[in-house]
Amino acid sequence: MQEAIKQFKIVKITYNDSRDEADNLAIEEPLEIKLTYGSLQNRTVKNVSVTMRTPGNDAELATGFLFTEGIIKSVSDITYVYHNTIACAENKQNTIQVDLKEDITPNLQSSERNFYTTSSCGVCGKGSINAIRTVHHVDQQQGDWQIDNELLYRLPQVLQKHQAVFADTGGLHASALFNLEGELLLLREDVGRHNALDKLIGAALNAGMIPLSKSILLLSGRASFELIQKAAAADITLVAAVGAPSSLAVELAQEFGITLVGFLRNQRFNIYSAPKRIVSSAHQPYNLTNVVA
Amino acid sequence: MQEAIKQFKIVKITYNDSRDEADNLAIEEPLEIKLTYGSLQNRTVKNVSVTMRTPGNDAELATGFLFTEGIIKSVSDITYVYHNTIACAENKQNTIQVDLKEDITPNLQSSERNFYTTSSCGVCGKGSINAIRTVHHVDQQQGDWQIDNELLYRLPQVLQKHQAVFADTGGLHASALFNLEGELLLLREDVGRHNALDKLIGAALNAGMIPLSKSILLLSGRASFELIQKAAAADITLVAAVGAPSSLAVELAQEFGITLVGFLRNQRFNIYSAPKRIVSSAHQPYNLTNVVA
Repeated sequence: MQEAIKQFKIVKITYNDSRDEADNLAIEEPLEIKLTYGSLQNRTVKNVSVTMRTPGNDAELATGFLFTEGIIKSVSDITYVYHNTIACAENKQNTIQVDLKEDITPNLQSSERNFYTTSSCGVCGKGSINAIRTVHHVDQQQGDWQIDNELLYRLPQVLQKHQAVFADTGGLHASALFNLEGELLLLREDVGRHNALDKLIGAALNAGMIPLSKSILLLSGRASFELIQKAAAADITLVAAVGAPSSLAVELAQEFGITLVGFLRNQRFNIYSAPKRIVSSAHQPYNLTNVVA
Repeated sequence: MQEAIKQFKIVKITYNDSRDEADNLAIEEPLEIKLTYGSLQNRTVKNVSVTMRTPGNDAELATGFLFTEGIIKSVSDITYVYHNTIACAENKQNTIQVDLKEDITPNLQSSERNFYTTSSCGVCGKGSINAIRTVHHVDQQQGDWQIDNELLYRLPQVLQKHQAVFADTGGLHASALFNLEGELLLLREDVGRHNALDKLIGAALNAGMIPLSKSILLLSGRASFELIQKAAAADITLVAAVGAPSSLAVELAQEFGITLVGFLRNQRFNIYSAPKRIVSSAHQPYNLTNVVA
């Protein structure tokens, strides 16, 4: 596995003092995801994506990306995932190849939709959400549970304690998965927040943990539309972000019945959608009905 | 112009207290960039990109994106930039159309390179940087100047004071441009940090300010490879980030001779490359030669 950290010479300036030091930075390198599919007599190789990522857990990243983008439906569509270094003079592990079973047809339109829409008006209003959306439901039945607000308060500290590369570099996003008792199940870090979540979901797929309806996703930063979309693809029903959500993240969470929590830090948080899954110390579920906007 | 902020009903939880409130969030909506080019007898319309952005300054965003991705070489390649709402039932301003002059051929391979590489080994090592890179030089002649370290200390406060939407939502990235006296020239905000920088560079293009060799770019968050790449496209020679840089951001800055500063906050910062442009209070330029990594 490649390293996630690289050392650089720097000048560290503090007030009027300066020191020469060695500083650890998070590695950012491109990863090309190649997909191989079709009959053995007529295999097709397609470059699906290039993402700037921190090396490590590349197979999870590729698996999670293909799943959350709707290109594959299940981890069982895949036969092998491996670094393809053969064609590379430098022998670097920056190309990951995913081989699909002979009878599986990847939904590549789903992927292209993210960059180029083909309809005449693919990105407007309701239509836009549909155009970019890759998932269409969250299993509400499995999401019928409640947790105490105090359980949520504890999660950022657990994340911080375990975020090893961030502690060293200050430069990584994290996605963490907890069970309903607040125990950490999975943690993945990356320079890209989409990559951190794809790695996490890829790891969950490999471990047979999907659907994740009975778990909590914690994001170290802000919650965007695409992160909620990826969470929904894995049937996650509670997403808590240390940072702010965007308008479209809230609207998508509302539509999917996902509980969305923002600004979770210092024993505080805001609930933006589906508050029914969070219960106060007085054992009262929260609701949004009394608000006059 | 569309609004950048939208109000949502939320439940605000603090310790064991909860209140129903209305909360302002940064709007995130898709923007499709369409390019029209070719002879009047045979015009081609191409969907170049869909980006999740905060509405506002869309023309700048499109112009800046096309320029920093290397699709156009100059703002003079463009005849018109306008919201195309005609084909949209909801009449939303989520499609921006850029018309090029008849004799201009856009470099669309440059754009596709960012998502799909076509060579057999497009993303490995040195080759990878070349594959993704869209610019090939920074005008070093114009970047031969020096500023005091104390000028840098002041910039984050100026940014904070002027970051209006962030103050209200906590959810936006910012890019700010300063002159060598530390005066704020331009500030743009967006849910996406690439978009914030594209808007800023688009505004600078429209104002005839490119090349920006004699100015300072301040980023509110982390510095990635792609942000340095976009800065280099506008000939920016000093980039200061409030957050951490990535390894590849430093390597690209070193190669282009761009001064890269990270962790600029609380009267401290680190210099990662080309320290010659920053001078201590004792009027000594910094250098990186004494460091043993």
